Formats: sequence, structure tokens, C-alpha cells
Amino acid sequence: MAKGASISGFPEWLPSERVVEQRVIDTVRGVFELNGFIGIETRAVEQGASLLKKGETSKEIYLLSRLQDVGHEESVPVEDRLGLHFDLTVPLSRYVVEHSGELAFPFKRWQMQKVWRGERPQEGRFREFVQADIDVVGNGELPEHYEVELPLVMVGALERLRGLGLPKATVHVNNRKLSEGFYRGLGLTDIEGVLREIDKLDKIGADEVSKLLVDQCGADEDQARACLELADLRTSDGGELLSRFDDLCRIHSIGQDSPAYRLARQGLDTLAMIVDEAARIRPGCVIADLKIARGLDYYTGSVYETFLEGAPSLGSVCSGGRYDNLASQGNRRYPGVGLSIGLSRLVSYMLHTAGARPSRVSPAAVLVTVWNESDRHSSNVIADDLRARGIAADVAPSAVKIGKQIRYADRLGIPYVWFPAQVEQDSQGDPQAGDEVKNIVTGEQERADSTSWEPDIVYAQQSINLKA
Amino acid sequence: MAKGASISGFPEWLPSERVVEQRVIDTVRGVFELNGFIGIETRAVEQGASLLKKGETSKEIYLLSRLQDVGHEESVPVEDRLGLHFDLTVPLSRYVVEHSGELAFPFKRWQMQKVWRGERPQEGRFREFVQADIDVVGNGELPEHYEVELPLVMVGALERLRGLGLPKATVHVNNRKLSEGFYRGLGLTDIEGVLREIDKLDKIGADEVSKLLVDQCGADEDQARACLELADLRTSDGGELLSRFDDLCRIHSIGQDSPAYRLARQGLDTLAMIVDEAARIRPGCVIADLKIARGLDYYTGSVYETFLEGAPSLGSVCSGGRYDNLASQGNRRYPGVGLSIGLSRLVSYMLHTAGARPSRVSPAAVLVTVWNESDRHSSNVIADDLRARGIAADVAPSAVKIGKQIRYADRLGIPYVWFPAQVEQDSQGDPQAGDEVKNIVTGEQERADSTSWEPDIVYAQQSINLKA
Repeated sequence: MAKGASISGFPEWLPSERVVEQRVIDTVRGVFELNGFIGIETRAVEQGASLLKKGETSKEIYLLSRLQDVGHEESVPVEDRLGLHFDLTVPLSRYVVEHSGELAFPFKRWQMQKVWRGERPQEGRFREFVQADIDVVGNGELPEHYEVELPLVMVGALERLRGLGLPKATVHVNNRKLSEGFYRGLGLTDIEGVLREIDKLDKIGADEVSKLLVDQCGADEDQARACLELADLRTSDGGELLSRFDDLCRIHSIGQDSPAYRLARQGLDTLAMIVDEAARIRPGCVIADLKIARGLDYYTGSVYETFLEGAPSLGSVCSGGRYDNLASQGNRRYPGVGLSIGLSRLVSYMLHTAGARPSRVSPAAVLVTVWNESDRHSSNVIADDLRARGIAADVAPSAVKIGKQIRYADRLGIPYVWFPAQVEQDSQGDPQAGDEVKNIVTGEQERADSTSWEPDIVYAQQSINLKA
Repeated sequence: MAKGASISGFPEWLPSERVVEQRVIDTVRGVFELNGFIGIETRAVEQGASLLKKGETSKEIYLLSRLQDVGHEESVPVEDRLGLHFDLTVPLSRYVVEHSGELAFPFKRWQMQKVWRGERPQEGRFREFVQADIDVVGNGELPEHYEVELPLVMVGALERLRGLGLPKATVHVNNRKLSEGFYRGLGLTDIEGVLREIDKLDKIGADEVSKLLVDQCGADEDQARACLELADLRTSDGGELLSRFDDLCRIHSIGQDSPAYRLARQGLDTLAMIVDEAARIRPGCVIADLKIARGLDYYTGSVYETFLEGAPSLGSVCSGGRYDNLASQGNRRYPGVGLSIGLSRLVSYMLHTAGARPSRVSPAAVLVTVWNESDRHSSNVIADDLRARGIAADVAPSAVKIGKQIRYADRLGIPYVWFPAQVEQDSQGDPQAGDEVKNIVTGEQERADSTSWEPDIVYAQQSINLKA
């Protein structure tokens, strides 16, 4: 086979790195299930028509062709072709509509799968990565309390990853209705345009955004300044949020009886509820941050972005929001709220910045040595005894010198090496009458019985360690 | 959003079905890890050139195009395009070569991922499905004992799935060298052709295969009969295998000093070792079956197929073999042996034939009710107390009548419903001073403290039940 070549944007982990990714996946899944979320998996492909309809990534789709159809692809419209999903939200909304009769609503689901984005290859951008999503989808209606519960579940999941090298995470929340009401109150009409420019604040700064608001969105200098003042509002106290927002409205002459204010107020009340309830349950993890805009056009209420302390370059690692119109069937709507973690980027951070590494590459706690190939059966029996009691065990690949067998264990990080009993002489010249097991980390060696011996708790499982 | 539509060949499970699939995946992974296999995951795509080179499915590939490149696809040769992997063996061989400097050999790996086959849609054929693979790959050489250990690990995994409705599995083993040596000894030269026709025995029967051997592979009637006699040989005893094979050679005048016999003998000795050692460890699970041919041309020694008792229509559910030439780099070869389970087909059997269903759809053991929306915080605190001790808990979606909240739990199969203490009167007209929890399956209700209560072991976890 030809020498392999890595493909830009399609990351692949070495075995020791994969242990970290697997641990991240298992940990996050554990938190989701503990909170009563139901796991689903959707097919990797959707109809082109579905993929083209939604979201910021609609230009970054991989379409499929069967090998047999190569050369005739143009005859099929893109809408009728199959494409790989670029997120797990579009598939969820399709799944919910397709199976609505068989789901209990509100439907709380978790989903962790690879997604693909057909971007140009470029530094640091993944074209294949794992997303971990939770969403709650209602049938017709969806209670507001999920808008605080879901970010808290995500915070709980991210908190569990701190042992693997993740810094503290804070969810920043805004509300589309609040922004829209305020902008309309100012007299602006290109709401999506304003949101799009505000979204650039962290990247290009206030001055540039102000210019864009004037140049692109029909704002005058005062309106642009007002938009930036709103974006500057950040607090984790609901009361403070309300009074500072009302101050801004007063300054910019947005009357409390205007339809624009009433729209903003809806969003404001939800946002105040979110930060106050979150502060009661997990203080310091959720803040109102009115510059959060989110590019995706399907959000209709709360929007979330999550930042890691000391890692601003990562950007938002967990984003989402409430969408009231993503899924519908006839007159029936399925409003939802959800958040999504870009897991691959987190794993990359843990590996490369935090230096997370497993205590061992192999899941085996024990390597059973083989004195002679003709004795391999006895070694297999010992390994099976251990496995029957849940102790992962490997058997030496070949009956080479014991030192070489121990080096194999050492290379895989397997902490225990098991020496089966033998009537022949061992390396010290003594016959070894019973089985012995040696911890090659501590050097301790002891008599052991494969049907009752237990590894020290420290060495029983793979653990993840951080760079000093 | 448009009404969803299922896509032929891309199966998707309902939440209750997904619980079964997830349990299958977790169980199989557990067995792989217990045996010291290291988990890896490879990217979903490979270069077209790699995909086109190997295997029976080389005609069933999905190629990718970026949306932006639609219409210009023909300008890129298929070899230079990206395609979805159709198995996990081709990616493994590429991964091993790419990362050979960073792996410890022999490299024992497990891998469970979706694979895609760009077939025409047809009844009962999956175009997307999950494969679960184990392989051991050596650097330069690979000891023969893995050829018995790997099928035994797979048997162990399949054995663990019997509780989920899988019938008893038996691995049928043959050896390419044995077949090739025998055919050459008969004077046949189109070895691949003969194997291809023999592979059809179960489908079309001996008479048709005999005709094909004559018509397609240059065999005369005697040679064709000899091939069928060999294919008829089936035993789980190594000694019997040797003597019956030698009988056949005598009858068909294949001399024991011929190169053809010596080649056959290599395969025969390996095969005898496999069935004898397997019988010592797990009697009745592995048999030599000389009609096993396997379509894939990269196998060079042992070949495996696995059949389920009473489910012949499923065909082989776990197949593989030894391949000495799949991966190489310069003069360095990486021989391997591995087997692959087509998990989706097994899950489909468990669901639809064995009637496997989870005891509950939700992972939650407890639903905490909410007396009033204003009391939701107390219910959240109780749920968090339970979760902190590893008890999965959900909170009622809304403070509707208690009967309706209980029905929500019932629909999700959540066995326990938790009633927070309240100073107001409960449905019997009595104030409820402390928390209570009710098992809605047994009807038992008791006082409970969220910081110490434990569910009955029977109801603690989701379990999988079979149709009566």
C-alpha cells in the first residue's frame, strides 16, 4: 500500500491521544445521561435541499456521488443529491418531524457524532470534527426554564473536563428579541445586518464595527454608538440587567410603551430569569453579555456562547440558542433550545496546550508473560481468569527474553507484569513455584493467584495526567 | 422545515432502539478493552486512490465534492478525490504505515465506526452501517497464535450479546494456503476464480458451482468434484482435519513431496492449531470449514466467517482473515489478522427478530415532580442531589397536574417519581411534610431523602429485555 498521507482538516489522533478523546466523550455522555437526556444518532447524510436551507455553513457542504455516477453528477440538481451533515441541529429537526408520532415531548436528546464542513483547507480549521449536542424540543410549545437548564448541563459537562486540562468555562447569554427590540427602538431595520456586524466586535474592535454599522446597515453615528453601548452591557445580576437596559432606553428615547420596547422586554425578562436562576445553582458560570450575536439565522430567543478562561483564541467552545421555527410540519411547530460543543477543538486544546496524556496507552492493567511458546496456553488461562473478574489483561506477543517482554509492557504503559508459575529455573536461578506479579512502576513483586488478585486502585484503570 | 423523508439504506433508530444499539456498542467495546485492544478512530475519508485499490467493495464508493466544486468535478481524477471509507481495514493499513514510528508492535487495535457503501438502494442492504473491528498488525512479522486468539475474542464479544437476543455464534475457519495448495495440486491455475465460485456454495448449491468451475475456471469434471469434496470438509478436531485432508490428497494423487502439498500443509497446520487451541479454551465455538472462501483478495492465510444458530439468512455476521501484504512501506511489511462485525445488521436482528427493548427509553431513574412553577428550583435541587450520587434524574417539564407528570415518567419508562415536600395539601388532602418517592411499576411509595436514597438495584439502570 502506498505511504499514507494526512489530509488537511481531517484530524486523526494517535492511540494515546485517542484515549483522551474517548475519555472526554465518555465523560460528557455521562453528564448528559445523568440529566435524563436520551441518546440518538442520525445518519451522516441529509438531502441537499435540507442542508442548503439553514445556517451559516450552507456554503460548506460535502455532496456525495456514487462512483458509478461520476461524470453524470451535473444531471442531478444539488437539492436532490445527498450531502454530509454540517451540524447536528438540522438532522435533529428532520428526525423530530419524521418520528414525531413516536417521541415523548418535550424530547430531551443528546447526540455526539462527526460533522463535516467542505471548507477550503486552512490552518487550524477542521473539516471533520466531533460535535456533542443537547437539545430539548417541544411539541407546539416549550417552557422557558429549559433556557437556563441546558446551559447549566453544558457547564456541568465542561466542569467535569477540568480534570483533563480544560480551563473554567463561562456561558455568555444574550437574547435575540432583546437586541431586535432595541435596534428597532432606535429606528434601525436591518436587524440581521446589525447582528452580523456586532458579531465581529471581538475580532475587529468597536471602531471598525461602528463604521460597518454606518456603511452597511444604514445606521447614523448615534444609532451606531447606541448599538455599541448595548453590546457593552454585561452582568450576572437580573435586576442590574433590567435597570441598565432601561437606562439605555431612556438615553436613546425608546419609550416603554412602544412595540419595540415590548419585544425587547420579552427577551430581557427571559435573560434576567436565566442569569438569576443560574446564579442560584452554579454561581459565576452564566452571565448576560449583550454583544453575543451568533451568526445562525434560525435563533429566535436566547443565544449562548461559551468561553474558556485564559483561552480567548479558542473563541466560543459551546454555542447554541433557542429556535422556535426550525422544525415544523403543517401547522405544527417544534420549538427547541440547544447547545453544541465542538469536541475536537477542545480535545486538541487538552492535548496540545494542557498536555493531557493517559497513564497508559493500552487498556490492559496486566501483561501476562510467556516462558515458552509451548506454555502460551497457561498464560492465556491466567489472562482469562483476570478478564473474568473485569481486569483488562494482555498476553506477551512472543516468548522472547523476559526483559524484552517487560519492555513491551513498559512501552504500552501496562503497570503489572505477571509471571506464571514454572518448574524450570527463573532468571535468578531459582525455580518459581507459584505465580508472581510485579508492578513495574514501583518495582514491587508479590505472589499472586489469578482468581483472586486485585490491582492497586491507582493502577487499575487508565487515568489522564496533565503536563507538570 | 420540509417533512423529513427516510433515505433507503441509511437506517436510523428510534430512541428505544438506539438504547439497544448503544448497549451493543458498549458491550463489544468492553470485551475488546478487557483483552488489551487499543481503540483508535480514523477519519471518515480516504484518498480515492487508496479506496480503489483494495477489496470486494471497490465499486461501491461514495466520492465527495465540495459544494463550490459542483460542476467541475470531472476535472479531478477519481484517484485524487476524497471518498468515504467502505471498511475499517483499508484505513487501518494506511494509519499503521503513516504512524508506524509512533506505534508499539504488534499493534492490537479495536475500532468501531460507520462505514459507507455506495450501492444501489435495495431491500435489506445498508449503505451506512457500523462496523466493529479488531486487528493485530505486526512490524515485519506476526506470530501465528493471534490467528486463534482474535476469533476467540470475537466469540467472547458475541457471547456477551446473547443476553440481548443474539443466538449462539460459531466461527468457521479456512486457510487460503490450504485451498490454493490443494487446487494447484489438482492442476488448477485460476485460484481466485475457484475461490470465487466456491464462495457461492451456500447460495446456489454444489451442482451450479460445479458447472461454474468447469465453465469459468478451466476445471474438468474430476477437478470440480475434488474442489467440492474439499469444500465439504468440516471438523473441529485438528487430527481429523489432517487425516481427512491427506485422504483427499491420496485419492486425487497429490503427492506429499509436491510444492502444492507443502503449501497446503502450511495452511493445514495453522488451521489444525487454531481448532485444537480454540477447543481447549472455548469448546464448540470454532470449526474448520473448508468451503469458507471470502471474496476479498487481500487475505493470504486464515479466513473467518461467523454464523448464528438458527439465523442462516443473516449470512456471516463477523468475517476476516490474515493479510500479509495489505500494508507495506518500502521493504517493510506489516502483516495483520483481523475480524469485523457488521454491527448494524446484528442490532437489526436483535430488535426485529429477538424483540430486544430497553426497560426504559430515558436514562433517568427518577422524575422529580414540580408542584408549582415557582417551586421548580426545589425540584432542581433534589435532582442535583441525586445526580451528585450518580443517580440519573429528570425534572417534570411543567407543573401540570401530578397525574400528567406521572404519565410523562411512564411514557419514558422512568420507574421512580419523586414528590418534593410541600406545606400545601397533597391530592389526599393531607399536607406532605417530607419528600416521598414512588416506584410507579410496583406502586410502592416511601419517605425519602435526596441525599441518601438509593433506587432498588432492579430499577437503577436501563436494562434490555427480550420479547417473551
